Amino acid sequence: MTSRDLFVGIDLGGTKCLGVALAGNDCVAEARLPTPEGADSVLATLVQLVGLLRSDCAPDHELASVGVGVPGLVDRAGVLRHAPNLVGVSGLDVKAELQRTLRVDVTVDNDATCAVWAEHEMGAGRGFSDVVMVTLGTGIGGGIVAGGQVCRGAHGFAGELGHMVVDPDGPQCPCGQRGCWERYASGSALGRLGREPAAGGDDEVRGEQVTQAAAHGDPVAAKTMAAFSWWVALGLVNLANILDPEVFVLGGGVLAAGDTLLVPTRATFASLVQGSGRRPQVPILPAALGERAGALGAAGLARGS
Amino acid sequence: MTSRDLFVGIDLGGTKCLGVALAGNDCVAEARLPTPEGADSVLATLVQLVGLLRSDCAPDHELASVGVGVPGLVDRAGVLRHAPNLVGVSGLDVKAELQRTLRVDVTVDNDATCAVWAEHEMGAGRGFSDVVMVTLGTGIGGGIVAGGQVCRGAHGFAGELGHMVVDPDGPQCPCGQRGCWERYASGSALGRLGREPAAGGDDEVRGEQVTQAAAHGDPVAAKTMAAFSWWVALGLVNLANILDPEVFVLGGGVLAAGDTLLVPTRATFASLVQGSGRRPQVPILPAALGERAGALGAAGLARGS
Repeated sequence: MTSRDLFVGIDLGGTKCLGVALAGNDCVAEARLPTPEGADSVLATLVQLVGLLRSDCAPDHELASVGVGVPGLVDRAGVLRHAPNLVGVSGLDVKAELQRTLRVDVTVDNDATCAVWAEHEMGAGRGFSDVVMVTLGTGIGGGIVAGGQVCRGAHGFAGELGHMVVDPDGPQCPCGQRGCWERYASGSALGRLGREPAAGGDDEVRGEQVTQAAAHGDPVAAKTMAAFSWWVALGLVNLANILDPEVFVLGGGVLAAGDTLLVPTRATFASLVQGSGRRPQVPILPAALGERAGALGAAGLARGS
Repeated sequence: MTSRDLFVGIDLGGTKCLGVALAGNDCVAEARLPTPEGADSVLATLVQLVGLLRSDCAPDHELASVGVGVPGLVDRAGVLRHAPNLVGVSGLDVKAELQRTLRVDVTVDNDATCAVWAEHEMGAGRGFSDVVMVTLGTGIGGGIVAGGQVCRGAHGFAGELGHMVVDPDGPQCPCGQRGCWERYASGSALGRLGREPAAGGDDEVRGEQVTQAAAHGDPVAAKTMAAFSWWVALGLVNLANILDPEVFVLGGGVLAAGDTLLVPTRATFASLVQGSGRRPQVPILPAALGERAGALGAAGLARGS
């Protein structure tokens, strides 16, 4: 006899949907499909992915519930309010539509909220009750665990850390503000820094190239990475002053730079934080779960653990 | 027969200690004493204040517990780690010392944490589960209630909202950073704005005078207040993107400006917040409890309600 012990988590990304299936503490299946455009196609893809994972696990496990992580503002009823990186899905009631088709409980959260939950439960933030996770990708994603609970905010929109303004005269952000943190401390921002004359000035440089060159000991790239890390640390200091986490977990492609990013970030953080020297150090750790964090966290939140 | 139903709350300020005594939902006594310098004198003043309130309420009520709100970083064990506005008290174990002398339970929290709890329980934030309170005084104090719980952070240091950097090239802050929010949006910052040439350039202008003149319809002061309100709103936008509160409660002397502050702050906030128009409006309300908020909240937290 099979029991309803299968929890599917899907990370709906801008280019692909990554799904995992958890049974107990084991990830028993994984699948991915490209993300299409338009609400109906996105829903069909999510249903198809659940179907793939479900049949992979049959007959041993039966589906209990599904969690979905989405890139954007999702309200506490599971409606996607604002998703700048997906086409044609704003206003989509992801939870209700999926529940109607799948006939199981569905939870919908911001993708970074899912990722911080996974890192808290089984990754770099394991054993800490207050975790702030920052994902340095094309933009900056963020998730908060406070007192062992995921912090969604009053409307589900907490954790938009990348749109914290750190210089109101700074470059324009697509969000409408100027000088958002993600203009300075995301992977895209690292690419811009690498294209400046002091860093060689090559118009084709991207964040990944700076990251790789720095990791391989290139001195110009290491210098660019040090300037970049100052901005990463500045945002972390702001978050420490506001939230006082026990640990920061950093994710995203830029983390491939390893210690060339982490060492100067930790040093700047320690020198800038309010009351430095009179408070416990806050570890700044690299994420442990990689690209599967969002899907694993979505499954975990669906399970309610 | 008297019962142990008296909860004393004390707000330990830079110049005065304000104490209240709560029995049931009533504030049955209030007293104040000047704040002395040095750890022993501060402890003696706190004990004296508890004594005054206790004898005011005898024989009807007996002391159950005491809460103290302190201006600075206080850890979760009740030790004052960093108090820039008090002389000679850093490192003081407020909780242990008071418990030893008073022989009742003592809770110690940051003063702004106490204030947000009071506003949440019985003030402007009543009925809201996610409240961010910002006190615009000499500096900026802050307190956070998330999901109906006071948010102290992992070490008790959450809510240092005034030291969020909003311009790393901005003026030096005593905390060591540059361009902290409180350099732009506190009462002191308002005074500085009022001393600029565009606002009349009088070297003696203080924040209170700008506030009063604006409240009385002075057009230059109203213009200064509009510039000031932009910075207030910018910080609130950052906090909304990070925490997604249901309501903001603003306190401090600057609030005497009333709508000359609140109306432009609300307008700027609505235009800058991420996903504006696709999310519920966040009310920005003036605090209701005035200077007693800290003491009332300290008593409430001592009671555990």
